[in-house]
Amino acid sequence: MRMSKMYMPTLKETPGDAEVASHKFLLRAGMIRKSASGIYSYLPLGLRVVKKIEKIVREEMDNSGAQEILMSAIQPKEIWEESGRWQVFGPEMFKLKDRNDRDFCLGPTAEEYFTTLIRDEVKSYKQLPLVIYQIQTKYRDEKRPRFGINRAREFLMKDAYSFDTCRETGLESYKGQWKAYEKVFDRLKLDYKIVEGDSGAMGGDMSHEFIALSETGEGVIAFCEECSYAATDEKAKVVVQESHEDMLELEEVLTEDLKTIEDISKFFEKDPKKCLKAVDLIVDGEPTIVFIPGDRELNMAKLVSYLKVPEHLISMAERDDIVRVSGAEPGFTGPVGLKDGVRVIIDRSVTKINNLITGANKTNYHYKNVNYSRDFEGEVAEDLLCAKEGDICPECGKKLKFKRGIEVGNIFLFGEKYSKPLHASFLDENGKEVNFYMGSYGIGVTRSVTAIIEQNHDDDGIIWPIAVAPYEAIVTIINNKDEDQLKLGEEIYNELKSRGVDAMLDDRKERAGIKFADRDLIGIPLRITVGKLAKEGKVEFSTRKERENEVLLRSEAIEKILKLKDEALND
Amino acid sequence: MRMSKMYMPTLKETPGDAEVASHKFLLRAGMIRKSASGIYSYLPLGLRVVKKIEKIVREEMDNSGAQEILMSAIQPKEIWEESGRWQVFGPEMFKLKDRNDRDFCLGPTAEEYFTTLIRDEVKSYKQLPLVIYQIQTKYRDEKRPRFGINRAREFLMKDAYSFDTCRETGLESYKGQWKAYEKVFDRLKLDYKIVEGDSGAMGGDMSHEFIALSETGEGVIAFCEECSYAATDEKAKVVVQESHEDMLELEEVLTEDLKTIEDISKFFEKDPKKCLKAVDLIVDGEPTIVFIPGDRELNMAKLVSYLKVPEHLISMAERDDIVRVSGAEPGFTGPVGLKDGVRVIIDRSVTKINNLITGANKTNYHYKNVNYSRDFEGEVAEDLLCAKEGDICPECGKKLKFKRGIEVGNIFLFGEKYSKPLHASFLDENGKEVNFYMGSYGIGVTRSVTAIIEQNHDDDGIIWPIAVAPYEAIVTIINNKDEDQLKLGEEIYNELKSRGVDAMLDDRKERAGIKFADRDLIGIPLRITVGKLAKEGKVEFSTRKERENEVLLRSEAIEKILKLKDEALND
Repeated sequence: MRMSKMYMPTLKETPGDAEVASHKFLLRAGMIRKSASGIYSYLPLGLRVVKKIEKIVREEMDNSGAQEILMSAIQPKEIWEESGRWQVFGPEMFKLKDRNDRDFCLGPTAEEYFTTLIRDEVKSYKQLPLVIYQIQTKYRDEKRPRFGINRAREFLMKDAYSFDTCRETGLESYKGQWKAYEKVFDRLKLDYKIVEGDSGAMGGDMSHEFIALSETGEGVIAFCEECSYAATDEKAKVVVQESHEDMLELEEVLTEDLKTIEDISKFFEKDPKKCLKAVDLIVDGEPTIVFIPGDRELNMAKLVSYLKVPEHLISMAERDDIVRVSGAEPGFTGPVGLKDGVRVIIDRSVTKINNLITGANKTNYHYKNVNYSRDFEGEVAEDLLCAKEGDICPECGKKLKFKRGIEVGNIFLFGEKYSKPLHASFLDENGKEVNFYMGSYGIGVTRSVTAIIEQNHDDDGIIWPIAVAPYEAIVTIINNKDEDQLKLGEEIYNELKSRGVDAMLDDRKERAGIKFADRDLIGIPLRITVGKLAKEGKVEFSTRKERENEVLLRSEAIEKILKLKDEALND
Repeated sequence: MRMSKMYMPTLKETPGDAEVASHKFLLRAGMIRKSASGIYSYLPLGLRVVKKIEKIVREEMDNSGAQEILMSAIQPKEIWEESGRWQVFGPEMFKLKDRNDRDFCLGPTAEEYFTTLIRDEVKSYKQLPLVIYQIQTKYRDEKRPRFGINRAREFLMKDAYSFDTCRETGLESYKGQWKAYEKVFDRLKLDYKIVEGDSGAMGGDMSHEFIALSETGEGVIAFCEECSYAATDEKAKVVVQESHEDMLELEEVLTEDLKTIEDISKFFEKDPKKCLKAVDLIVDGEPTIVFIPGDRELNMAKLVSYLKVPEHLISMAERDDIVRVSGAEPGFTGPVGLKDGVRVIIDRSVTKINNLITGANKTNYHYKNVNYSRDFEGEVAEDLLCAKEGDICPECGKKLKFKRGIEVGNIFLFGEKYSKPLHASFLDENGKEVNFYMGSYGIGVTRSVTAIIEQNHDDDGIIWPIAVAPYEAIVTIINNKDEDQLKLGEEIYNELKSRGVDAMLDDRKERAGIKFADRDLIGIPLRITVGKLAKEGKVEFSTRKERENEVLLRSEAIEKILKLKDEALND
């Protein structure tokens, strides 16, 4: 492509709302434009990157044996009601009516749609296993669209669905997709970790997330550098060390106006961990108190999964509820001597800590030396805590590290979660009707663009990996009034193209400084500069990453590009 | 692809609502499935066809110098209000609100969107001309979705937009797209005609339609076999032959109960053409009568374009209006002695016919021997008539033929129609602000699938042209329990694939009859049948179209496929 003809509206200034490198550079390089909050258009350079990622995803999906289809973006309400998710998605789902007043949504995902498609078409175990996928625009009316196309309301996603006869082969499909995902993200040159994921609204019994590491990511993962353990911060298992003190005598203490864990910890000169935290909740209308160590936060995802109640039915209790249930003002709730009618949930870790400080259910009083089993009992839940950096690795006992990242892929194995309510079954070898055993598998195609940039940029612009660069090579003519330069530049450009290199030619009537700045900004990885040495048949070669110029003969420069391209794509 | 693994749910029976061959065979061949009225999903075989068409369209667009972008399917209401089209599209536009109650539509087309994109990005004449396009899902909430994916509510369209400095270069862009379209439809092997089109809601001063001929098409075109004249039936110019009788004396005649042209023509023993037809209308609240020859129908598209009033503001007059304006019951309106306050429009042809029969504006009476200029005058409009088969060709005077067809492409040159209301301008060479001169260009990608099938099928299924076939060749193993057959089939399949042929292998455990029927149904153009002759290294070769088997050595059959493929793609 000749840049003199190219629609590539680069910007010198960064638009005000761009907070992260990917958003900033995609805008500045003229690759995307905002059409409305969280809704973007892809200009020629940006779309080329998206198409290259799409191609890699498609190739690896096809290699895995998955078959591509394309379902409509508009989905009828009925199937979402059958699965019970019309309400679950709530305002995050774009909804619309057609001229006949029939309800539809713009698909945020397509478990229901694929399940109902297969339910009508696949009848026999002989047709299984089956993995089908699409690369399709998805819609989520995010409350806070952010970071450009990273968290957009319209985005391109590859979503696959597996249909199996049973869990055993379902796991094979799951592993097959896992491997395909590794290949995809390896080819995208992403630095990523595969972590145990929370299955959230997808539900199900197993899930993993593919997280591209990035300080600007919205997700946090916990991982162990000693062993292979890794999980999202929400899912990471918390192992609390037991305390082995002798039990001391229960004591009531006046603690006027001391309400926070910090106040209490200071006053009693005790580690916050030993100051019991009471989280007063209303769960589906029922007063519920969860007790956790004072140095911890309640993990809502784990609680939802424990309670099996949707998150919107869980709220913080109001003062009046707390007073009614504990008999004391907020800040003095404890597990000893609570009134009847309140559900008490105790995190397992609390049962392993001796001589706790707890509220006394009496305004202005706390208890000292409270011990589980001796002083109180209740429903014990395995792990309701948020993990934090430095926690003990649940697998090897070493310390966990935390890093931020961008979720670029996720895989779920959820069995009959959708096939059962949607009545999607096949006939097994004995002619018996059995529900499909299913999984679903997503890759954020447009989001991957942002992850790649977050991991590959410097102050001046993007540094595309060759496999996804909008163009692999760029030939910059420093002065296109100089006939030697113009001729050599054109020749090199044409030779690169004829030898299969995606090449750009900067033949614009611009100053060299602008050409260099644009070339850095748009991040073309392999570069040839045609300047004064043109009359000797020499050019400068550099990579976007190193930016060190090397004077080469024209043929050497071309061979170098072919070699580097070849190495990169066959790596 | 191995058919034993393929997701290809063929049907023996035709689903009830499929009226035309393309709809019937796409469903039966397991290529599409209906998700809701006018909303379809593409299964693996169907999607492969769509992708092949998409690729041809993309290549020819790129060759024409157009640049691909991708805008969001969701478009903000504001830009449609700026152009005045939010109301024009009416119920045909899918509308929705986001969580903040902001209005959006699902784009039925994107003139406004592209215009506002460019308005913010392109500032100088130096950046022009510019043609940008996208291949994107479009939405129209059709009143009567029909014929499967032919008239669907969600469909894939290539839409391009040209931006020029003036009409002169605008015409160059228009011609460039015209040529690209010819290449696309030639490569799709469509039998099509390019006709003058009505620009309808797009507006504008020039338009052409690319119509694939098909008896099941919803459009009708008029064309001349002698010269190159062709137009949609709506747009076709009507040339009415003059009558050269001497003017006779005006005469009032009692015509009790004779109200239709047919009655009057019989009663007076005159050609219906000479019996003046009065079309009583209300145009934007104003009574309006259009007079045309009695053997003709009023052409609403021509009238709209003449009046420059949107169609929904034009309605038939009620009895009371007619009585008020003409002084007589309906059926007796004429141009002589009409009351004041009514707008009278006379089709030019009427001025060329002598001795007309017309209503007398008096119940139960007509006039005989009415002549324009002598007996009445009024506003003369050039051509408000519907053409009909056998009309005189406006270019060469021979007779026009009519044929039905499917509109697969259209091109419009509309100048400042959108750039003016949307304030999209650039600075010209003198630093003066000038509105972009624009055009828009559509290709129905999914609709083209139906046009191809309508033109290429027989009773047993589809006959794909090689360029768009889901697979180019199929190897059918008659009996896959026979080791010779299985081995030879596999070898041929692998060799075809390794030599770049998109090949399928029918390795299913099915009866030969089922394999043959499926192969005919899905329409793979080049076929090798591996049967009893396998042990001699021989196979049968046939094409889907001819279905005549030729016994060949394995290598001969492969060479034949390569040759036919090569010929087809380089034709």
